[in-house]
Amino acid sequence: MSSPIHRITGAQLIAGAPQPVGGGASFRAVAPARGTPIGPEFPEATDEQVMAAASAAAEAFATTQDLPPATIAALLEAVAGGLEAIGDELVELADLETALGPTRLTGELARTCAQLRLFATTVREGSHLDVRIDPADPAATPPRPDLRRLKVARGPVAVFGASNFPLAFSVPGGDTASALAAGCPVVVKAHPSHPATSQRCGEAIAAAIAACGLPAGMFSLLHGRGTEVGRALVLAAPIAAVGFTGSLAGGRALFDLGAARPEPIPVYAEMGSLNPVFLTAAALSARGEELAQGFVASMTLGTGQFCTKPGLAFVPDDEAGHRFEQQVAAAIGEQPAGVLLNAGVLGALDERLGVTRALDGVTVLAEGYPPAGAGTWCAATVLTTDLATYRATTELREEHFGPVSLIVRCPTPSSMVEVARELPGSLTISIHAEPEEVSADTTTGTTGVAALQAAARGRCGRLIFDQFPTGVAVTPAMHHGGPYPATTDTAHTSVGTAAIERFLRPVCYQNAPAAALPPALRDDNPLGLPRTIDGRRIPT
Amino acid sequence: MSSPIHRITGAQLIAGAPQPVGGGASFRAVAPARGTPIGPEFPEATDEQVMAAASAAAEAFATTQDLPPATIAALLEAVAGGLEAIGDELVELADLETALGPTRLTGELARTCAQLRLFATTVREGSHLDVRIDPADPAATPPRPDLRRLKVARGPVAVFGASNFPLAFSVPGGDTASALAAGCPVVVKAHPSHPATSQRCGEAIAAAIAACGLPAGMFSLLHGRGTEVGRALVLAAPIAAVGFTGSLAGGRALFDLGAARPEPIPVYAEMGSLNPVFLTAAALSARGEELAQGFVASMTLGTGQFCTKPGLAFVPDDEAGHRFEQQVAAAIGEQPAGVLLNAGVLGALDERLGVTRALDGVTVLAEGYPPAGAGTWCAATVLTTDLATYRATTELREEHFGPVSLIVRCPTPSSMVEVARELPGSLTISIHAEPEEVSADTTTGTTGVAALQAAARGRCGRLIFDQFPTGVAVTPAMHHGGPYPATTDTAHTSVGTAAIERFLRPVCYQNAPAAALPPALRDDNPLGLPRTIDGRRIPT
Repeated sequence: MSSPIHRITGAQLIAGAPQPVGGGASFRAVAPARGTPIGPEFPEATDEQVMAAASAAAEAFATTQDLPPATIAALLEAVAGGLEAIGDELVELADLETALGPTRLTGELARTCAQLRLFATTVREGSHLDVRIDPADPAATPPRPDLRRLKVARGPVAVFGASNFPLAFSVPGGDTASALAAGCPVVVKAHPSHPATSQRCGEAIAAAIAACGLPAGMFSLLHGRGTEVGRALVLAAPIAAVGFTGSLAGGRALFDLGAARPEPIPVYAEMGSLNPVFLTAAALSARGEELAQGFVASMTLGTGQFCTKPGLAFVPDDEAGHRFEQQVAAAIGEQPAGVLLNAGVLGALDERLGVTRALDGVTVLAEGYPPAGAGTWCAATVLTTDLATYRATTELREEHFGPVSLIVRCPTPSSMVEVARELPGSLTISIHAEPEEVSADTTTGTTGVAALQAAARGRCGRLIFDQFPTGVAVTPAMHHGGPYPATTDTAHTSVGTAAIERFLRPVCYQNAPAAALPPALRDDNPLGLPRTIDGRRIPT
Repeated sequence: MSSPIHRITGAQLIAGAPQPVGGGASFRAVAPARGTPIGPEFPEATDEQVMAAASAAAEAFATTQDLPPATIAALLEAVAGGLEAIGDELVELADLETALGPTRLTGELARTCAQLRLFATTVREGSHLDVRIDPADPAATPPRPDLRRLKVARGPVAVFGASNFPLAFSVPGGDTASALAAGCPVVVKAHPSHPATSQRCGEAIAAAIAACGLPAGMFSLLHGRGTEVGRALVLAAPIAAVGFTGSLAGGRALFDLGAARPEPIPVYAEMGSLNPVFLTAAALSARGEELAQGFVASMTLGTGQFCTKPGLAFVPDDEAGHRFEQQVAAAIGEQPAGVLLNAGVLGALDERLGVTRALDGVTVLAEGYPPAGAGTWCAATVLTTDLATYRATTELREEHFGPVSLIVRCPTPSSMVEVARELPGSLTISIHAEPEEVSADTTTGTTGVAALQAAARGRCGRLIFDQFPTGVAVTPAMHHGGPYPATTDTAHTSVGTAAIERFLRPVCYQNAPAAALPPALRDDNPLGLPRTIDGRRIPT
């Protein structure tokens, strides 16, 4: 059987329809494991195409903002079904373009489809609309009118696909799923590392929209290798919000563009994160070998290209800490070289690692097997330093995107607490401690795990106990966000059902006649929504 | 009895304590009804004082972020009680500084205290923490850890007092109440139009914090006449979010500062709003005189200085519309001159109105009694124009802050729908129609009230039927926000209990031992909070 990549035709999908290819710039994907171009030419979207996609989304929005929850849920399920129907093809395409491997990609596809279905369930349940009804009170001073509030779709959403999750954080990923769930049309800027995967996913989404009888403008897909297409998209007047997962530089640039527009829009960017791990002397004494294995497995998973890769570990500068370093070194020494997603990732990692290695006070603890072959291969690397060097060296607070971590030796438990307070914002912070050390009571002192936990919570979105940070469950309670630079707004998550909230805005109906009310706000509650009436939550 | 203004000493309150006055710049309040300076000199806060206030807030935050709901609620109630205890004095001070009149100010004080108590009730109930618990599922693929999410305080909040509500949107107003309710320390930049009122309110808040045994750094108050103090405050590193009510120029400037910081922060600015009113031919035929009286009363309330003043009215260009104009003209002709809040407001209104009057196609329909006396008096003014002129003239889409409105004659019902779609974002849009015209069903045509309502909802935060927009109830269902330029983020409200959400961020605990969990997340739910467990809402 010939590879599915030979059947792909690179084209912008505007309002679901493939566009004729003009004579402008184009690019090809590169197979990272071999370093060779693969697949067809993908044309760069022109400014006119960007605006056409945004305008089609604005036109579709007139319909999509009032879709019944059941219709939105059916669309999300249809997208999931459509992806599954071409699952083998998607896994093969994504593996060619990312080298992440069929096992991981099969799991990622399952996660992507489960995510779409969870959002469908969430939309049907309806808590995300946060319906609130305050009956009129003519006896109040001043008299209170009937007030009914719900959340409605914000408007067309621009989504930027991420390089490291070609499915779950790309064209059919969490940003697209949550925007569609909110009733927002979506224009995706595909990541140029996996354009063929993006194209097939985009076709599946467009087909699902058509099959559900929904407006074609609800989905468009744009290609582009540089930053121009993305810039034009964020600046397109009809775009009301942006979802982005990627680098700090990229996310900040888009955030700045969105904030500087004549009408500013939110750019929800999930960016760099160090995901520090704290290991107490007691935990290392009790289970050092297990922790070393877990740490190395987590930092090398997906060749270290997870948003939640642990890039920093703080250990006591004592015998237990030194033994942990040796255990990590042994495990790293056995790590095979891994393939990075593209030459850009490899170049950036080589450059960053070159700087870090040359820093005074930083030592290479261990490296995995060296790179082999013509592709974007790299070796896992663990460095060590002392706390004074870490605190004095700004460069050590920047992310190495790839299988690189830094172990920092802390002289005292209280120094761990102090350094936790100063950490840059992260998606996660992990604490490995023994049960008898753990407490939420910070009144007991400033050096213990309670104090460490309090300091760490202030610098992250997710506080993890006795596990490593890679692996992000898609559930109602998940929070995949955190203080800057982990994200541009610490109040939002890009994973889990709360991700929908980014793409909604409240609207209040005052003194509306029954005939003017949307179904969600009617007295007879035809959608069966959970509501808050006069300040009291009424479950369904 | 001597005026309470003679007992005021102008001083920054840093961590609740009055600061010694240095030799720098200072200013005095001006009685707007007479145009004469009143009260003591208020020193401008220095950069060092701004940073001292922000640092004290950061230090207090270590405690305030973990306060039990009952403690926060008790503080809010103590502030309300403290304000009531000096209520007569506050009304007298505020009337001297704003000329809004004792009746209005007595009502505003009651509203301010009711708002604080409503937030106390809300905090005790606990829905705002949005607690979500997903039990571990070891059988899932991949195995799902125990995840528990709640919302915690964002950090120190800067609040900018508004000129037009010296109590309800100033030092003890909705922004301060909602930030304290979230567990955030507050640094208020007092509005220079009413520094004495601000000082007394600030003293009352500081006293309530002390009486509750809470950290003094939880509240500071800074004075400044120009923009420097506010700029320094938004740029102060410990500040995590900003609440602002005021002009578009002022709000946008602060938003831009917040977005451009090394670590961007949200600036929730509620700014200019035209609050358009649509009146159908049927409504005008049925109750034109009542609507004309209501419109004039709403646009002149508080001398037209409400955020929700109706600044635009769209009427049919037919006999009913023309009769409405004559009815409005008659009512305006009887309007006494009003006092504006300060010379800046008067100067800006005079300038804007001068530009508007000179526009081709714009006619002065009627003016109220002319200004009298040395203070900041002005006459109510209603202008008219045709739809073509309105659509062609950018200046007509800017706010006149004061008792000025523009009536626009629309040739057809469908032209009303078209112009509604193009409106700048507003806090409110009002529709006056007859019951038989009203429908939420937009499939019935593009010219009727259903189409108008759909278009209007897209351009506002609150859609009002058969009432005028002034008057904003403080309730769970209230939404006082809207698309830009009404606010900088259409997802948030500055009035109503949902205002607390601006100052919270989610945090997720993963695999936490019971001993590490805060009370809000414990299995035994000691705080009695409403929770969502495994995606299902569990009421209390």
